[in-house]
Amino acid sequence: MSNSSNPASRNAGPRRVAIVGATGAVGREMVNVLHDRKFPVSELGLFASERSAGKVQETPYGAKTLQAFDADVVKGYDVVLLAVSGDFAKAHAPTLASAGALVIDNSSAFRYDDNIPLIVPEINAHAFQGGGRLIANPNCTTAIAVVALGPLHKAFGLKRVIVSTYQATSGAGAEGMAELEEQTRNQLEGRPVTNSVFRHPIPFNLIPQIDAFQDNGYTKEEMKVTWETRKILGIPDLPLSCTAVRIPTYRAHSEAITIETIQPVTPDAARAVLADAPGVKLVDDPANGVYPMPLTAASQYDVEVGRIRANLVFGDHGLDLFVCGDQLLKGAALNAVQIAELDL
Amino acid sequence: MSNSSNPASRNAGPRRVAIVGATGAVGREMVNVLHDRKFPVSELGLFASERSAGKVQETPYGAKTLQAFDADVVKGYDVVLLAVSGDFAKAHAPTLASAGALVIDNSSAFRYDDNIPLIVPEINAHAFQGGGRLIANPNCTTAIAVVALGPLHKAFGLKRVIVSTYQATSGAGAEGMAELEEQTRNQLEGRPVTNSVFRHPIPFNLIPQIDAFQDNGYTKEEMKVTWETRKILGIPDLPLSCTAVRIPTYRAHSEAITIETIQPVTPDAARAVLADAPGVKLVDDPANGVYPMPLTAASQYDVEVGRIRANLVFGDHGLDLFVCGDQLLKGAALNAVQIAELDL
Repeated sequence: MSNSSNPASRNAGPRRVAIVGATGAVGREMVNVLHDRKFPVSELGLFASERSAGKVQETPYGAKTLQAFDADVVKGYDVVLLAVSGDFAKAHAPTLASAGALVIDNSSAFRYDDNIPLIVPEINAHAFQGGGRLIANPNCTTAIAVVALGPLHKAFGLKRVIVSTYQATSGAGAEGMAELEEQTRNQLEGRPVTNSVFRHPIPFNLIPQIDAFQDNGYTKEEMKVTWETRKILGIPDLPLSCTAVRIPTYRAHSEAITIETIQPVTPDAARAVLADAPGVKLVDDPANGVYPMPLTAASQYDVEVGRIRANLVFGDHGLDLFVCGDQLLKGAALNAVQIAELDL
Repeated sequence: MSNSSNPASRNAGPRRVAIVGATGAVGREMVNVLHDRKFPVSELGLFASERSAGKVQETPYGAKTLQAFDADVVKGYDVVLLAVSGDFAKAHAPTLASAGALVIDNSSAFRYDDNIPLIVPEINAHAFQGGGRLIANPNCTTAIAVVALGPLHKAFGLKRVIVSTYQATSGAGAEGMAELEEQTRNQLEGRPVTNSVFRHPIPFNLIPQIDAFQDNGYTKEEMKVTWETRKILGIPDLPLSCTAVRIPTYRAHSEAITIETIQPVTPDAARAVLADAPGVKLVDDPANGVYPMPLTAASQYDVEVGRIRANLVFGDHGLDLFVCGDQLLKGAALNAVQIAELDL
């Protein structure tokens, strides 16, 4: 294992990989994605809370015993994927990275630090070169949006972006999905419907709040989309407004996106760009009922993009589109593993 | 009963009211709303298909026997509320109106006819005066949006509008709501999930298509919002783009709305305008988790408006808001009865 802080000097060959927060919805998907993508894993360490330590978790690599997190142990790994809280990441990520591990943090703790790369590999893999060993994994809604917005920005230039989201309960982890299922059963059976993960009951409802409200009236989730899209696309002052809404779906986030472009744009030109864009699956045959939906986008790596049309607000410089991507995959675990792959 | 075609000359006193399409979700709510608002009903006739004729329907006016539609009978009523298809309305509404009945049609058949008023009473009741006896009731999504957009337009002037909708299954009638419930049960019990009302399975999914696709890539539902908002607000060329999405909720439609205004606008100024706006319930205390939701807006007359904030795209001329209203009430039955009340 090298202790160098320069990614370019990493040794080739299989890696020792640690996943911290391995029992959560994102942590479990990280294991699945590593295996599915044949990431060269020489050793896999699954770390979780004291409470989970000693328990056995079934994985594609076989049954694995969970270990309590110990920084001294984890810093010996080559790659550390953090699926933990921002506070936990703040406390440990810099130390692990200084020890030489490539640390990819799924929390928002470091995303807005100018010195720390925030990466969606299809869009700004270049930010990995020359960066340190600590990389931030973006907010799920942002990662899904920029896979489509990046190529459109490169081709036509983004001037304004308006996003309305339709976000799945997986954004609140396995507990969020469980609350949706359990409370939907309760409602259908006439039993009392309660809520603990979400601020209001979620069955057959929607909640136009994700994360805490900021002084400007936006939620932190909405501002994450603005801040992170700007950073990933390298447009520091991009005017972007987001409305983030939780809806009763399980694990794919959808987004209605309206853009104004700097260059003129047509739906056909946009389709041609998106058809060749990595990470994008063009799903745009509306006459035949083909467009992005959670039903088809869930558990898939690619972000579905469709409903592409010239919009009625920005004339020949405007486009509307609809995207849908798996929140746990492109929105979290897949993107983290893709970042790790940049170091191979 | 007067045969005059001038609304102003109608006799005072109670009215004979016919509801055509009385067995559907909207027709049933029309009966409820007439009773709840103490509309002066001297006689209530419930009309439906041959198939339903003779059946008895429970109503707040007591048990009523359904009659097969007969134009010669229905044209004898003072007020005719049509909750039928556009084709049916086209075939019969003009004749009924010529006979002197005040005909309020919930279909889209006449909404885009320059000679036929399209009315949301809180916004353009003036269009009723001097109009004929046939009045179009707007699309549900439009009716809910303009209750908020009308006062904002009057105060600040609308320059651009972007709408993303979260529409309930009630928009497809009682069958839509039944399909949501039944198929959700199927999914939770591990039985096959099918769809017949909707183009795709709706449980724990969303469908970014409502009504048929037009040549411009928008659905007809989306264009209805554009065309009807322009007509009701009297802004024939208003740039308005809508994305209409069906989500797994029962009967309240929500909409994320971004506007650019002609005059500068602030959230506080907008709140002051909306606090006094008829038909609006300001629900905007986000720190305490208070914002529009189907859970609270369903079965209510007022449209909930909240999440009001200065937006990041149009600077001090921009506003974002979130609205939620009952699709069967303000989106259909309530608005129809309110139009009938203009004639009292």
